[in-house]
Amino acid sequence: MTPTSATSLPRVLVVGAGGTLGRAVVAELAQRHDVIAASRTEGDVRIDLTDPASIRAALEKIGRLDAIVCTAGKVPFKPLADMTAELYASGLDDKLMGQVNLVLAGRGHLADGGSITLIGGILAERFIRSGTSASMVNGALESFVKAAAIELPRGLRINLVSPNVFAESMPDYAPFFRGFEPVPVARAALAYGRSVEGAETGQVYRVF
Amino acid sequence: MTPTSATSLPRVLVVGAGGTLGRAVVAELAQRHDVIAASRTEGDVRIDLTDPASIRAALEKIGRLDAIVCTAGKVPFKPLADMTAELYASGLDDKLMGQVNLVLAGRGHLADGGSITLIGGILAERFIRSGTSASMVNGALESFVKAAAIELPRGLRINLVSPNVFAESMPDYAPFFRGFEPVPVARAALAYGRSVEGAETGQVYRVF
Ligand SMILES: NC(=O)c1ccc[n+]([C@@H]2O[C@H](COP(=O)([O-])OP(=O)(O)OC[C@H]3O[C@@H](n4cnc5c(N)ncnc54)[C@H](OP(=O)(O)O)[C@@H]3O)[C@@H](O)[C@H]2O)c1
Ligand SMILES: NC(=O)c1ccc[n+]([C@@H]2O[C@H](COP(=O)([O-])OP(=O)(O)OC[C@H]3O[C@@H](n4cnc5c(N)ncnc54)[C@H](OP(=O)(O)O)[C@@H]3O)[C@@H](O)[C@H]2O)c1
Repeated sequence: MTPTSATSLPRVLVVGAGGTLGRAVVAELAQRHDVIAASRTEGDVRIDLTDPASIRAALEKIGRLDAIVCTAGKVPFKPLADMTAELYASGLDDKLMGQVNLVLAGRGHLADGGSITLIGGILAERFIRSGTSASMVNGALESFVKAAAIELPRGLRINLVSPNVFAESMPDYAPFFRGFEPVPVARAALAYGRSVEGAETGQVYRVF
Repeated sequence: MTPTSATSLPRVLVVGAGGTLGRAVVAELAQRHDVIAASRTEGDVRIDLTDPASIRAALEKIGRLDAIVCTAGKVPFKPLADMTAELYASGLDDKLMGQVNLVLAGRGHLADGGSITLIGGILAERFIRSGTSASMVNGALESFVKAAAIELPRGLRINLVSPNVFAESMPDYAPFFRGFEPVPVARAALAYGRSVEGAETGQVYRVF
């Protein structure tokens, strides 16, 4: 959030701005946007996606937005043999419903023609061991975004970015993603640019 | 469940056996299977998919199975403008996690090479007004089934049937599905046959 409120740049809220993806998205969008950074622990405003009241409170404070983007969302990675209903629920509550909460609370704060960009991932369509929760959640997000796009009012748009594993995350994720071609996180950030600054809606931007 | 336990037919549990789809699936499979019918209110055993304890209790009673199929699962149909986190949760708890509960509890009761067949729907890939919950849930099921297939042990298989709207349901559903080509529910039942009696896994059988 730039100190001057007289800026004429479009205003974009980035939830998860301090993460691997979030920092790259901020670097891309801040070139042409007033970025309001959010997460549970840092940034201009505090938002916990799993707590709808925290989203609503932050949005009240921020005022009118041109775009809302999300770069946060967690799912458990565990062998199917060890998965439980509770573990699936944790992924659904966090990465899926956390982002849906952002859509439900955020849509009324967007200017006409404004956009929402959510984060999915390649595991909707390519499958790995320990990936059933990620696949479930990313698959849900792909169909949700396409369905929501046709019902949003006022020219509001919604898209999903679906990246391959990030090169920057390979130190942690390599054992899960052998043989995958990692993408620089900056490529995923470009897809956010297409969504926010383009005119499409109901799209899944595959970054792989 | 035939009265004689000396039958040598393969044994299949059908959850939702009394419904529009369930009756057609029973008619198809009963030609070559010992069918154990289940739902909350009728059939050979009582199962409520949203209550994992009821699934476990029924499975204990039933014993070893060759196939588990589901023809139950409910999602709310409401305009996006009226959707709430609670309404999305109801679809996730019922049609998505209800069926996942069946997988988690049922896998240990299946004979080697046994199969699980779940129910999704066309709204994973085609979109209608008031369909965001259905799309979310069906999309989640498509990716979940493909992901789970590669991790199931002992040659266990899992597939999803994804039908268009049933001709038999058009009296209720027509206003939501204008322009769709309804399919006879017997065609969806054939897809269950392919899943149960075929050898494929991780497939989405589109009936449209
Ligand atoms: N890493 C990959 O290779 C990869 C590939 C494909 C897709 N993705 C997806 O991309 C997204 C971001 O991944 P990442 O690797 O950049 O994650 P990350 O580095 O762990 O960053 C997560 C960011 O989200 C914030 N956050 C976490 N929980 C939150 C909550 N409940 N409410 C609000 N903010 C929250 C964190 O800040 P606070 O802790 O301050 O809240 C942090 O800023 C995830 O959804 C992931 O599934 C990642
Ligand atoms: N109808 C369509 O055109 C269409 C098209 C594509 C996909 N589908 C999908 O196909 C599935 C079946 O649809 P349908 O039209 O056949 O439904 P239906 O006629 O309403 O039958 C539902 C069946 O499931 C049982 N059931 C409901 N809730 C249950 C629960 N919590 N636990 C266990 N059993 C439960 C019901 O019996 P009890 O009440 O005794 O439990 C009933 O036997 C649904 O998932 C639907 O989304 C339907």
